[in-house]
Amino acid sequence: MAAAGGSGGELKLLGTWASPFVQRVRLALSLKGLDYEFVEEDTKNKSELLLASNPVHKKVPVLLHDGKPVCESQVIVQYLDDAFPGSGDGELLPSDPYARAVARFWGSYIDSNFFAPWNKSFYTTSEEEKATEMGKAQAALETIEGAFTEMEKGKGWFSGEDRPGYVDVLLGGFVGSMRAYGVVVGVDVLDAARTPRLVAWAECIVALDATKGKVIPEVERIVENARNYMKK
Amino acid sequence: MAAAGGSGGELKLLGTWASPFVQRVRLALSLKGLDYEFVEEDTKNKSELLLASNPVHKKVPVLLHDGKPVCESQVIVQYLDDAFPGSGDGELLPSDPYARAVARFWGSYIDSNFFAPWNKSFYTTSEEEKATEMGKAQAALETIEGAFTEMEKGKGWFSGEDRPGYVDVLLGGFVGSMRAYGVVVGVDVLDAARTPRLVAWAECIVALDATKGKVIPEVERIVENARNYMKK
Repeated sequence: MAAAGGSGGELKLLGTWASPFVQRVRLALSLKGLDYEFVEEDTKNKSELLLASNPVHKKVPVLLHDGKPVCESQVIVQYLDDAFPGSGDGELLPSDPYARAVARFWGSYIDSNFFAPWNKSFYTTSEEEKATEMGKAQAALETIEGAFTEMEKGKGWFSGEDRPGYVDVLLGGFVGSMRAYGVVVGVDVLDAARTPRLVAWAECIVALDATKGKVIPEVERIVENARNYMKK
Repeated sequence: MAAAGGSGGELKLLGTWASPFVQRVRLALSLKGLDYEFVEEDTKNKSELLLASNPVHKKVPVLLHDGKPVCESQVIVQYLDDAFPGSGDGELLPSDPYARAVARFWGSYIDSNFFAPWNKSFYTTSEEEKATEMGKAQAALETIEGAFTEMEKGKGWFSGEDRPGYVDVLLGGFVGSMRAYGVVVGVDVLDAARTPRLVAWAECIVALDATKGKVIPEVERIVENARNYMKK
């Protein structure tokens, strides 16, 4: 793994181990072969560094590059391509302008159409609304499976290449949580009957993570965390 | 204005004249000096071309470049930089990786933290919730004014250059609607007391548009449209 400290400055990531948004940044850092210091934040007692680095949202992840903060996971992942061209396995976004636009479109879709209702399903107390929101999240994953089928070109990654790229990293950050919350709420949002190709893709993300980065936590660990989270 | 047809393929924009998201794309096309055909969509009777081009969201704007569709305004604006480098006044995003990340951060903030509550304030029937959402939108604009002050470097644009860039275009698309909805609902979201610098910046956007593109509709025209819209 290339030492970012040598070639391109010091990298520090403020995050929490359980956050899917942090995991997508860590997957990106692994794929770009960049060394970084990971600083675990306590979300109930945020550090002065976090508050000063992301005064607008006060949220993780924050990437500090030679002390300069970059916030928002999709912004950070694109920043890694811009600031460290040619690093690691190569760029996460494709070089072709149209393919870049397609990747950004699905990046936006994942957050708005999958994550937003999925997350809402845990917050609401109405059983009917829970089911509605979970249904929206699953329908979004079916749409994403359609995109995967169009994009993967027999390679098994959204990138259409031999290695994962932008969309793989963005959805990949959710893989651990999707599995764990399936155990907790008894509904697998990533359902083998509805989205078999994404289930297989998720296995590839976990296998890749095991060799490349080890940033996706064990399901059991997220389950315990999720149970505590759901109690709130 | 450069003929995109000659240098880089045929451009067609599916939109509606009143949509702020379409206006931001049109501002970007003007600044990039790109000719395009504008196709006005009827949102109550969407064209087959729109439905086929954006099957996921079925929404404008859609940019067709030699028939290939690009959807989502922020994705389209970035696509114009990627597909037409060096065109018009230059790139909308800065070339410096860190400045690009800052611009993308504010682009995301504008939609999530300003537009979302502002739009919600028109939909809700509760007067209390209307005021709450309008307050959130105005607070977001105050935060954006702070960003403007840090970014403009005495140039008067978010880009920090002599010409507008990515954030100018994204927020600029809202200028006509901000003024018109101020007339309709009696509350100026872009308030001269709270955000004087953005009020002055908005004047510059309108003045620029008058010479460059003429894509921001007259306030009176949006007001009439907004009154019809609010009745629903």
